[in-house]
Amino acid sequence: MHDIRVTGFRWVPPFAQGLIRDLRVRWALQEAGLSFEVDLIDFSERDSDTHVAKHPFGMVPVFEAEGQDLFESGAIVLQIAEKSETLMPRDPNGRAATIAWMFAALNTVEPPLEALLAIDLLHGGEEWADLRRPGAIEAVNARLRPLANRLGGRDHLTGRFSAADILMTTVLRFIRHTELVAAFPEVEAYVQRCQARPAFRKALSEQIAGYARNEPVAA
Amino acid sequence: MHDIRVTGFRWVPPFAQGLIRDLRVRWALQEAGLSFEVDLIDFSERDSDTHVAKHPFGMVPVFEAEGQDLFESGAIVLQIAEKSETLMPRDPNGRAATIAWMFAALNTVEPPLEALLAIDLLHGGEEWADLRRPGAIEAVNARLRPLANRLGGRDHLTGRFSAADILMTTVLRFIRHTELVAAFPEVEAYVQRCQARPAFRKALSEQIAGYARNEPVAA
Repeated sequence: MHDIRVTGFRWVPPFAQGLIRDLRVRWALQEAGLSFEVDLIDFSERDSDTHVAKHPFGMVPVFEAEGQDLFESGAIVLQIAEKSETLMPRDPNGRAATIAWMFAALNTVEPPLEALLAIDLLHGGEEWADLRRPGAIEAVNARLRPLANRLGGRDHLTGRFSAADILMTTVLRFIRHTELVAAFPEVEAYVQRCQARPAFRKALSEQIAGYARNEPVAA
Repeated sequence: MHDIRVTGFRWVPPFAQGLIRDLRVRWALQEAGLSFEVDLIDFSERDSDTHVAKHPFGMVPVFEAEGQDLFESGAIVLQIAEKSETLMPRDPNGRAATIAWMFAALNTVEPPLEALLAIDLLHGGEEWADLRRPGAIEAVNARLRPLANRLGGRDHLTGRFSAADILMTTVLRFIRHTELVAAFPEVEAYVQRCQARPAFRKALSEQIAGYARNEPVAA
């Protein structure tokens, strides 16, 4: 892949820094050893015609490689994984298990975790959010418990580090403002293990450095 | 693929009939012209050791093919699509676009739609649900509006019917109890177009027939 470009936001408020989904793509590219350029857009530009032409839902990341635009972090990480054995084994069974866990991260684990994030950090203080919070925590635990069971003595979701761990770790970070992950030692150790990878640390520090450079003067 | 088996539930209440995710897999298999057997389990069996060994989160569907168990409807539909040009074009750009829209259906569109389904059909009458409903509808419309823009004059999400349309249609069905889709004529026509496919009709009628055969006597 040549001339890879990843689109993220120029700046987001501190509560969102390190959670925006271009982190997944940056991390996958670091693991795969692929160099890339970053395009940063203002949050207010996300609904512009130019950006919506690249991302129909006006979100980030957008990924440009080999002259094609691609959207959806899961699809982008899968495309990178298909080119890097670090991110996905080549054998059909290993590949299928990796993809199953990628979808599990995004379609089964992410929704209740992102719902709790929204309750606490976007809707905090609204009456419905206070009333819903206990049920939302229960929904999160209903995902963390089977995840802890799955991990058991495993270091990673499948037999080795893969793209699925990138997605699951970035999903689990959505509730970093709570102690819920820490209540499941296998999951806590797993997140720490994945976040200790040099590729993650580099991806995160570069994402955060961009926000620091572009912090609004008035903020 | 030989000896394909799909696991679904023996019976679910009427509000959930036609929404359970084995429908996606049945539909994909019908489109691909692959025959399969169905294993139905009681809803109460979903947390059993036997079932959790196949599906770590105790959900359906499970897919068994070539001696391997696979979970997550998105991953299963992708695996079927990789073997059927009806479901996914072979050229890299068409393939990438199909996969992008598959993730968009499950990771961008599904969460707010399923949240509204839960508010109306699982938590109806709870105080938080009543208070949250207007915001939840707004979140749904924030996905339907760009989807309508994308569809415009298109018949399908990409240039042709694909696995992405299977996932998006089954996601849009989550709010069939509302008039929200009907408010976007392009989206409404799209859902009708996809649901008119013989493979969808066969998959749905077989899923529903199973529930009818297994309706609890006391229900």
